Amino acid sequence: MKRNFVFIQLISFGIASLLMSFAHAADSKDPLPSWNDTDIKRNIIKFVTDVTDKTGKHFVDPEDRIATIDNDGTLWIEKPIYTQGVFMLDRIKKLAPEHPEWKTEEPYSYILDDDIKALTNLTVQDIERLIAVTHSRMSVDQFNKIVKIWLKKAKNPQFDRPYTELIYLPMIEVINYLYDNDFKIYIVTGGGQDFVRAFSENTYKIPPENIIGSSIKTEYTYQGSKPILIKLPELFLVSDKKGKAEAINLFIGKKPIIAFGNSDGDREMLEWTESNKERHLMLLVHHDDAKREYAYGPESKVGTFSNALMAEARSHKWNVISMKHDWKTIFP
Amino acid sequence: MKRNFVFIQLISFGIASLLMSFAHAADSKDPLPSWNDTDIKRNIIKFVTDVTDKTGKHFVDPEDRIATIDNDGTLWIEKPIYTQGVFMLDRIKKLAPEHPEWKTEEPYSYILDDDIKALTNLTVQDIERLIAVTHSRMSVDQFNKIVKIWLKKAKNPQFDRPYTELIYLPMIEVINYLYDNDFKIYIVTGGGQDFVRAFSENTYKIPPENIIGSSIKTEYTYQGSKPILIKLPELFLVSDKKGKAEAINLFIGKKPIIAFGNSDGDREMLEWTESNKERHLMLLVHHDDAKREYAYGPESKVGTFSNALMAEARSHKWNVISMKHDWKTIFP
Repeated sequence: MKRNFVFIQLISFGIASLLMSFAHAADSKDPLPSWNDTDIKRNIIKFVTDVTDKTGKHFVDPEDRIATIDNDGTLWIEKPIYTQGVFMLDRIKKLAPEHPEWKTEEPYSYILDDDIKALTNLTVQDIERLIAVTHSRMSVDQFNKIVKIWLKKAKNPQFDRPYTELIYLPMIEVINYLYDNDFKIYIVTGGGQDFVRAFSENTYKIPPENIIGSSIKTEYTYQGSKPILIKLPELFLVSDKKGKAEAINLFIGKKPIIAFGNSDGDREMLEWTESNKERHLMLLVHHDDAKREYAYGPESKVGTFSNALMAEARSHKWNVISMKHDWKTIFP
Repeated sequence: MKRNFVFIQLISFGIASLLMSFAHAADSKDPLPSWNDTDIKRNIIKFVTDVTDKTGKHFVDPEDRIATIDNDGTLWIEKPIYTQGVFMLDRIKKLAPEHPEWKTEEPYSYILDDDIKALTNLTVQDIERLIAVTHSRMSVDQFNKIVKIWLKKAKNPQFDRPYTELIYLPMIEVINYLYDNDFKIYIVTGGGQDFVRAFSENTYKIPPENIIGSSIKTEYTYQGSKPILIKLPELFLVSDKKGKAEAINLFIGKKPIIAFGNSDGDREMLEWTESNKERHLMLLVHHDDAKREYAYGPESKVGTFSNALMAEARSHKWNVISMKHDWKTIFP
């Protein structure tokens, strides 16, 4: 009996060692293989290691491990124009046969004539009218289906690939790495919440309830006896600049400990993260790779990374990610 | 070598059996001991068993196991008036010394004079003014602290117990039971989101990011170099009636498969849940226990359970929970 007991102990020990060696192998595997071995990568790994180390002074409880990540230009491509903008233009063209009056009616005529110059000078009222026509007066379900169908066939003209493939592999690795370390990950986008919800789960493994974005009002009503939610042509929430910090409070009620952005629209989200009493990390993707993606900054209308933001990033020691130097691979 | 291998297999089998018998013991334990053994309890257990049975036709993926639960009158007491109303009245009294003009200014004077009759006839404008004074012009953090301090000492006059103890034990068991079965649980309250966030994690184990409620606007600004969010005296979102279904879509973007309410304010949330293509369950707590809690229904201003709602519940076969008959115990 005693011998057997010792034997069981030995076997248990063997199994435990085996499991531990597996665990060690998993630990030592590079979680961010598409990142070059620069300071930024080291900072991310050091941060995650610190906040998950139960014995360390920087440990953060899993329920407070909130990550917020911008979408356009941070998780996927945003040039030559925001993908949702392309969707809107395509949608107008698709609906045009039902609206012969659009041929001579601005701003629709600009789109039908491919008048790029006029399109870059649209007024806020123009954009609101376009959003009303393309994003509202249908149910939330219908809109979701329209976006899904569009994303299946739409392609970025420069790369000739679907937009959902023009996502940044290094950031996908960050998402997986954070999930593996019990983070709750939210997308916080200036883009449309319902637009991003249509692809976020399949593309990023981030579910609808973790998408915070700009939205228009909805109204609960009935189609026969069946309840439906209709999207109204009325702006409700703009999740950009100050609105990002406000939306983070509205939807999460906690401050992030890590935040990724890429433009002036993300400034307040990063400041809000920086004000967290727990250990925190702020990062900005800088598009400086004209060869593999795009190089743009303060002068760009889309994804503006102003000199003021760069100055704030430098003085606050935020991590400015150089796509050119810090990312080994860009797209999957 | 062969003998040892067989021996290891036997031990492995023994360990596996042991683990399985523990699992079985856990399974066979009554998850809802404070519920009487009536149809309602059986319906809840049958529902949870069905949606978690991988081999069954009603299986629902864990990510779609969304539960939405009302707060006032469903998770905790709402009589004689909503707890947040008591907080507001107490807050006015506390602030009164700084506002000598309130002695003669309505609606403040009603509160300082304990004029119950006048208080039950406040206008919407009166209530908005009271919310502005008691809930805004401070940071989100400050408000959170004020509510926490108040909840520590405030007591319900009839039961002489803190409000956070006047929660319904059968519902706490439901929360634990749903968590054990990988549900995501959200509170969807007509009450203030920030008010409920101040106690929900400690009281119900439901964290801030899972609280959906009515809210006022916030503004991102700076105190010196430190960013803060200030609560503004301006209504933003009313999460009641139609607004509950709209808020569920805004915050979750998925339909619940199970929803608990207790009043006319929960009607649309239950209808929205009922329209889910997955298996679903709708429940309403009916306060019919004057002896142990309160008995009220269609004639009550607080927590109105109208005859129309009861008719809809009956015709749709929603589960109407009788506190008197279905709950063995009410408070912890």
